[in-house]
Amino acid sequence: MYFSSDNWAGAHPKISERLMAASTGFAPAYGTSDLDRKVAERFNAIFERDVEVFFVGTGTAANSLALASVTKPGGVTFCHHEAHIHTDECGAPGFFAHGARLMPVSGDNAKVDCAALEAEIARFPEGGVHFGQAASVSITQATEFGTVYTLDEIAAVGEIAARNRLPFHMDGARFANALVSLGCSPAEMTWKRGVDILSFGGTKNGCWMAEALVFLKPELAREMPYLRKRSAQLFSKSRFIAAQFDAYLENDLWLSLAGRANAMADRLRAGLSASATCRNAWATTANEVFAVMPKAVMDKAFAAGARFYDWPQPKDQPGLLKEGEVLTRLVTSYATEAGEVDALLALLG
Amino acid sequence: MYFSSDNWAGAHPKISERLMAASTGFAPAYGTSDLDRKVAERFNAIFERDVEVFFVGTGTAANSLALASVTKPGGVTFCHHEAHIHTDECGAPGFFAHGARLMPVSGDNAKVDCAALEAEIARFPEGGVHFGQAASVSITQATEFGTVYTLDEIAAVGEIAARNRLPFHMDGARFANALVSLGCSPAEMTWKRGVDILSFGGTKNGCWMAEALVFLKPELAREMPYLRKRSAQLFSKSRFIAAQFDAYLENDLWLSLAGRANAMADRLRAGLSASATCRNAWATTANEVFAVMPKAVMDKAFAAGARFYDWPQPKDQPGLLKEGEVLTRLVTSYATEAGEVDALLALLG
Amino acid sequence: MYFSSDNWAGAHPKISERLMAASTGFAPAYGTSDLDRKVAERFNAIFERDVEVFFVGTGTAANSLALASVTKPGGVTFCHHEAHIHTDECGAPGFFAHGARLMPVSGDNAKVDCAALEAEIARFPEGGVHFGQAASVSITQATEFGTVYTLDEIAAVGEIAARNRLPFHMDGARFANALVSLGCSPAEMTWKRGVDILSFGGTKNGCWMAEALVFLKPELAREMPYLRKRSAQLFSKSRFIAAQFDAYLENDLWLSLAGRANAMADRLRAGLSASATCRNAWATTANEVFAVMPKAVMDKAFAAGARFYDWPQPKDQPGLLKEGEVLTRLVTSYATEAGEVDALLALLG
Amino acid sequence: MYFSSDNWAGAHPKISERLMAASTGFAPAYGTSDLDRKVAERFNAIFERDVEVFFVGTGTAANSLALASVTKPGGVTFCHHEAHIHTDECGAPGFFAHGARLMPVSGDNAKVDCAALEAEIARFPEGGVHFGQAASVSITQATEFGTVYTLDEIAAVGEIAARNRLPFHMDGARFANALVSLGCSPAEMTWKRGVDILSFGGTKNGCWMAEALVFLKPELAREMPYLRKRSAQLFSKSRFIAAQFDAYLENDLWLSLAGRANAMADRLRAGLSASATCRNAWATTANEVFAVMPKAVMDKAFAAGARFYDWPQPKDQPGLLKEGEVLTRLVTSYATEAGEVDALLALLG
Repeated sequence: MYFSSDNWAGAHPKISERLMAASTGFAPAYGTSDLDRKVAERFNAIFERDVEVFFVGTGTAANSLALASVTKPGGVTFCHHEAHIHTDECGAPGFFAHGARLMPVSGDNAKVDCAALEAEIARFPEGGVHFGQAASVSITQATEFGTVYTLDEIAAVGEIAARNRLPFHMDGARFANALVSLGCSPAEMTWKRGVDILSFGGTKNGCWMAEALVFLKPELAREMPYLRKRSAQLFSKSRFIAAQFDAYLENDLWLSLAGRANAMADRLRAGLSASATCRNAWATTANEVFAVMPKAVMDKAFAAGARFYDWPQPKDQPGLLKEGEVLTRLVTSYATEAGEVDALLALLG
Repeated sequence: MYFSSDNWAGAHPKISERLMAASTGFAPAYGTSDLDRKVAERFNAIFERDVEVFFVGTGTAANSLALASVTKPGGVTFCHHEAHIHTDECGAPGFFAHGARLMPVSGDNAKVDCAALEAEIARFPEGGVHFGQAASVSITQATEFGTVYTLDEIAAVGEIAARNRLPFHMDGARFANALVSLGCSPAEMTWKRGVDILSFGGTKNGCWMAEALVFLKPELAREMPYLRKRSAQLFSKSRFIAAQFDAYLENDLWLSLAGRANAMADRLRAGLSASATCRNAWATTANEVFAVMPKAVMDKAFAAGARFYDWPQPKDQPGLLKEGEVLTRLVTSYATEAGEVDALLALLG
Repeated sequence: MYFSSDNWAGAHPKISERLMAASTGFAPAYGTSDLDRKVAERFNAIFERDVEVFFVGTGTAANSLALASVTKPGGVTFCHHEAHIHTDECGAPGFFAHGARLMPVSGDNAKVDCAALEAEIARFPEGGVHFGQAASVSITQATEFGTVYTLDEIAAVGEIAARNRLPFHMDGARFANALVSLGCSPAEMTWKRGVDILSFGGTKNGCWMAEALVFLKPELAREMPYLRKRSAQLFSKSRFIAAQFDAYLENDLWLSLAGRANAMADRLRAGLSASATCRNAWATTANEVFAVMPKAVMDKAFAAGARFYDWPQPKDQPGLLKEGEVLTRLVTSYATEAGEVDALLALLG
Repeated sequence: MYFSSDNWAGAHPKISERLMAASTGFAPAYGTSDLDRKVAERFNAIFERDVEVFFVGTGTAANSLALASVTKPGGVTFCHHEAHIHTDECGAPGFFAHGARLMPVSGDNAKVDCAALEAEIARFPEGGVHFGQAASVSITQATEFGTVYTLDEIAAVGEIAARNRLPFHMDGARFANALVSLGCSPAEMTWKRGVDILSFGGTKNGCWMAEALVFLKPELAREMPYLRKRSAQLFSKSRFIAAQFDAYLENDLWLSLAGRANAMADRLRAGLSASATCRNAWATTANEVFAVMPKAVMDKAFAAGARFYDWPQPKDQPGLLKEGEVLTRLVTSYATEAGEVDALLALLG
């Protein structure tokens, strides 16, 4: 009963097999192999336009390099205060971008509120040298709270970014889960709604280490080869990342893996809705589920071998928990079995 | 006939298989799995003392984090002017260490000359605030020139570092090749000669991506968990790096792979010694061989499908090449076949 | 009628004269002159203990270097969300401290609330590598809102900092104004309440450019000579900063200048209390006054030549302004004349 | 007998008086006063074109910000190995430019050799991601060795920079001394020879703290307002720097001060030429003189109260000193008296 995180899962057999197959023979290093090129082209097809793709090692690297590529001196990136870049990356964005700052924006369900975003951007008028300068906007899709921006919501943020001439970044560590949840195309969820740069995650969805930084607006990528090398994210045997993506993107494997994860989350959500003791903390639609439960129930589940995290109560939801209750996070993955979900639900009661 | 670099090779079957085996099931993320712990302990055994090990993604990351962990404001790292950190990492050490500098030191055979090192260090007396301050010493073992520091040579550098209270770093991207060449133990080649921090490379020797930053003096590692995370080098599925090292270090696989690479280089060296048209540029003992050959011979070899690099003539060897000759680098790996070496030698004539 | 900022004033004649006197003759550069030493010793006397003093050029430099001197990888400085370091320094603290972050803390009157501070610190438990690590606490005395921490309030923050082993910094750009307002000694307002590092400002109080970074805990200053030089804040003719401080600190000139500024602010506050159209926005005690007034009144004042700034409404005071009203900031200085205050009050009505 | 450095001198009376005059009254802060604007315009006149001028506090700040304004990821600045930015700024350029590197170039008389420069630049071909990328060229005028680039020599470096599309920076800490030595106009010594960015120093030549960063190609200055503020080099009472430059540039005061310094150096050079015991180490033409003398003579001079520095022997001049001799540096300034020069010469014998 592993619901701690989707990165506790291993690697899907098709991805492992492709890795194995790629392990023989010789190939040019540092991203110049035929396989690297072939996979880069596949990204063009998936996004229905010419994109620039850079393989990197971690989601934090993808996000930090994305923001660094469009930073400015005294620069500010606007993101939700629950964004991964803000809460969980040990300040990496600031380090990569020479002290540039993240300016947290409020909004329900871990989604940036457009009015709040505009108000924050307005605090950085052009020429306001003491304040610094607006540099970019970043959203997380799916969010840290298991919610998903609708296409209209993305477009609304994109419109604000464009009007302020700010590059628009999407942290897609769980891009596939969001995509499956919305049932749209990658193009529709990104550049058709104004997204310029995408952190395209594979690791949480069945790869063992495959992250891609995708420039939907390739002219923003000019310095990226140097930014990536300088930050130690250019892999000599890059073809092994390419191999993972090659299998991942083939025959829509990635979508079916995300579909599986989401379906298991649906099963969990339904079970929680019917639970006598627990409840969904808020509506979620991707592969993260947040449950409120009595602490005693959580402790019992832990004792029985269930693995998941209790979670800090969001500041903006003061009435969420009743006496004795805790907030928990339950994450499903491509590897989650229905039986495990049912066993957990049985434990929770 | 692939002699471009040892990182053009793939992954050894035993390593691929271990990866495959590790790909099922669930495990705690970010380096906290049982396998991560088990492998960390194996490093203790290999180095015959308690060390602190941090898995990272690239050799550049290992080197840069090593230097960052002991940097100071205005800090200076002394290294050979041909060191990888100086010539081939796009300034990553300076980026990781906030603008700290590398101060190149001369020396034959790409090895730091002790007198030159002392002279450079002396240029940074304590309190000389305009100059900056000495921060660390770094050597590469095996060197970029295919040579290997003897144990006495390492000890001599270590003694200078210690006397000046400077942490001593070894870039061991080809650690195994050097070790096999010297026929000594890891402890003898490192901390018994004064080395404090080691970049322990696996990628060039049969792993597909496995680098370890090894603190032989664990108290220097205090900030490393944060340094690593902040620079986006903490991998969620870290156990896959652990799995590679698990196979790599088992039954001395790593030594036998390096032994194979070195033996193939020996074969190449012997062939060059007997060649009518080509010659060894200088004496090498690890898995890099530098050959002087007529440009026409190189072109012919390329045309026949051989892959290797021509190489810039070292500044301090002005008389190395005669009219019409070029310097080339030939690298063998665990995957190099004797037949390939012989075929190349036949081509070179 | 100049109330825009205390840095619109010039330099007090005694300070100008001392500068003039210091301008002849030769003296060792870079802070090593007799005058530099003499003034450094005077700081010991003023703070009643041995301190380490570093002259720098701007308040931003003093603050940023203070935080940089105690930063850590992934480090976080806790400060009020209205702190100058957070709102008005173009991200300089993050730049000096390699991407380290400021974590804004709420609190009435621009003073850090202790419960909120503890809650924020608690979000950075030891070993929480994803979050980063707590590195320091900073308060501004007097605050950006013209308020002054009481000695007990400083002690309370200091106690929290000490309990969490976090260095405690005070931004004293208006140190003298706060000191005079409290009527206590420098020691009482700083290290006796737990303050470890102080940005001691002279520029806003009658110097033309004199800022000092004072380490009340000298062992924290070990790297500061290099930090200062590396960030281009070591002045060759440092003795001219020393000369300013020499006059500034002599015969309590600094206290009498701040007393004058505060008294002018008192006169302004009293006038606003009696005004038919304007009012004090909140209670202030140093040399910044915040006034609520009808926009028409402000415009009339501007037209008549008064100089001051309208000010953004604090987020946490939504009911502050009535329809048609604006918030304004009025700053007095050592050079403000009573007649100017009265003229302004007459204009405001 | 003060010959340690031109920054041991104080401030010229005309500059002190202007400071005094500027010290009364109120004026807008942060470089927006009428005086700031007036002086900025004077720079246009002096350089015979529209330039962008930024006042900063130190020469190190001017240099580091200049290089930072044109840096790139993995960027490399080419400069002479004796350049101040390379030897005497505690790594500030690397810190300001995020780890960007200085690549030392050889050349006689502390001047960049054109062939060596081209060879170094060639080591950074476009797309060579491992090496980093060429970012800028910097020369020092007058050099650290008291020599002065001729106009043709500047043009030759400028031509190489332009051909490689590299911005060309001149460190003019002693700009006036070089200008007077060449007897040309500021335009002729800068942009007419390809210089794009100039560090224009006033401090060493009679100001107490006045440095200007002059963009002769204003489009390179776009980010400078933020770069300057972020690095804590925007002075609130900027008008006091303006006041110094106002006097400095009025009626060619700066040229007459530099002329005085150079003339005193000429007197010294002539004396050394005629000396029985000492000699000019090499030909110098600005206000730095390098003398070879017996150590006993130096010691005697020190004992008699003369102040100057002994100097490390340049690596590329191994035969400079005979047994028992030392190299010394003697610097004159606007404040040096002929009598002092003669007294020193008498001492040296």
